[in-house]
Amino acid sequence: MRGPDDKIASPPPGTQDLLFGAARRLRRCEAALAQVFEAHGYAEVVPPALESAEVFEGQQALRALDRSGHLLAMRADFTAQVARIAATRLSGISPLRLYYRGSVVRDGDGPRERLQAGCELVGAEGPEADAEILALAEAALGALGLSQAARLSVGTMGYFAALVESAGAGPRLSHALSDAVDRKDLPTLRMLCEREVPSGPAREALLALAQPPRPQPEALAPLARARESAPTPQAASALARLEAALAAARGRGLGAEVEVDLGEVRGLGYYTGIVFNLYVAGAPRAVGGGGRYDTLLGRFGDPRPAVGFSLDLDALVPLSEAAR
Amino acid sequence: MRGPDDKIASPPPGTQDLLFGAARRLRRCEAALAQVFEAHGYAEVVPPALESAEVFEGQQALRALDRSGHLLAMRADFTAQVARIAATRLSGISPLRLYYRGSVVRDGDGPRERLQAGCELVGAEGPEADAEILALAEAALGALGLSQAARLSVGTMGYFAALVESAGAGPRLSHALSDAVDRKDLPTLRMLCEREVPSGPAREALLALAQPPRPQPEALAPLARARESAPTPQAASALARLEAALAAARGRGLGAEVEVDLGEVRGLGYYTGIVFNLYVAGAPRAVGGGGRYDTLLGRFGDPRPAVGFSLDLDALVPLSEAAR
Repeated sequence: MRGPDDKIASPPPGTQDLLFGAARRLRRCEAALAQVFEAHGYAEVVPPALESAEVFEGQQALRALDRSGHLLAMRADFTAQVARIAATRLSGISPLRLYYRGSVVRDGDGPRERLQAGCELVGAEGPEADAEILALAEAALGALGLSQAARLSVGTMGYFAALVESAGAGPRLSHALSDAVDRKDLPTLRMLCEREVPSGPAREALLALAQPPRPQPEALAPLARARESAPTPQAASALARLEAALAAARGRGLGAEVEVDLGEVRGLGYYTGIVFNLYVAGAPRAVGGGGRYDTLLGRFGDPRPAVGFSLDLDALVPLSEAAR
Repeated sequence: MRGPDDKIASPPPGTQDLLFGAARRLRRCEAALAQVFEAHGYAEVVPPALESAEVFEGQQALRALDRSGHLLAMRADFTAQVARIAATRLSGISPLRLYYRGSVVRDGDGPRERLQAGCELVGAEGPEADAEILALAEAALGALGLSQAARLSVGTMGYFAALVESAGAGPRLSHALSDAVDRKDLPTLRMLCEREVPSGPAREALLALAQPPRPQPEALAPLARARESAPTPQAASALARLEAALAAARGRGLGAEVEVDLGEVRGLGYYTGIVFNLYVAGAPRAVGGGGRYDTLLGRFGDPRPAVGFSLDLDALVPLSEAAR
């Protein structure tokens, strides 16, 4: 019999054991979310915890070689798995409304296993589909007793993509610009623009993306102004689409405070249209987010548009009224 | 955009995607089990999906190196994780009644991810504790609508251990005997015994372990007969303990048909006392099982007795009335 061993006395760094009350609160929140997702016509899928590593291409998945030498990975992202399922076993059905709950594991610093729940709307491309997802994300926070405190930060990958294309940036520069915008790193962005982007409206518009968004009493007004001064028709079109989605979401009763942040360029790499983050009072970081990913299903042989969101249950469960 | 890729169009071999009805049936069964476990005073724990590899010592865990070079593993066994938790954060509390639900992943042939739910009773060592677990396992099958069809095969590691000790077998021979008994491989067992075990009652008793158990109208009678002819006091004592546990389980209302199989030597390596498998009509293999593991918590620095069981939800959900 061995003595206690520090390495095995605790769960691995970045993971946790949920005991008693914490487990009960998690299950109550999961049940409240399942109920609201099902009430909106979404059906659950349970993808495996173990996945082909290729499904998480470009992500920080924790990889493992099985005894046959196949490269596998722990589930790092539900959206990619749901895209695989939608593109294969469910390829004939549009639109598809799917939800999931469970944990993802990533190999990085900080939390490595994260509890999530979320929804994917597959095979629908209009602003109404974006609006459905925004409104459902808010309804999900409501089911947890948190809608009063919700705030939404929205952007669109289409605008950034149009600016980058207009600047004639190749993949390397495009990636560097995206990285600087994502971190709101104005000095780096300025250096990149001055060195590699011809001066003109696209460069000015790129530099504006690193400004922290100011809280606005009404988000749609500055969006309309940005559209009027958009450097290219593609950029104007991306902004018009975002406006239409937000207007449709308001029409569906979206009540959250909305802040437009055109520098919102989420890191997962597959977003192509609207992107958003969800905030609630009492949480220092976003408690969820999502966006449109119109090319991801194509990787699995069934090019169809899709949009979705996920919630960070590690952050939400302790704040939720539903857990009490 | 790539075309479909066979490697990523399907879930990895030995795993599956649960869609719609299958997901709904799983969740209904999990809820029915959670309810019966909680009604019996058991509280849920949610251990991480990612664990230190050492926790699954001797098991076929799927291992992964993180970016810092730490050897981790996907959850391969809930019992070992619950033992770690009980021995560390809950070391002051006895008895502990804990349950879990989720999936385990093993690196081998056949199914690699398996859905499970189960209970562990920690810090209780008498036959009443064994009986509580047997009766609760039956109640769990009842919650799934399957108790009418339940059959229980029980054995005890104590009897085999006593025979091996009496035969003077070292670890190598002991492992080979265990393997032959587990596979009911009489030719190999006979060869090992003739070569390496002195003739006498212990050898005869070892050879009897590879006989397939015959269905018995009353399991306790042959057990009492085996006790009378036990080759050593330790062997007799292990059988008396098993008799006491079964009698206590009957006293708690255990209704399942019981078959005693003294050659039941489960492979996980940590069982020390009673071991059992659960069968229901319609399933070709055991749908669950468990046993007593009085030395496992000691590996985590808190030597305490424990007994538990787990159910195989991949097998049970399709058979369950509760899923309908």
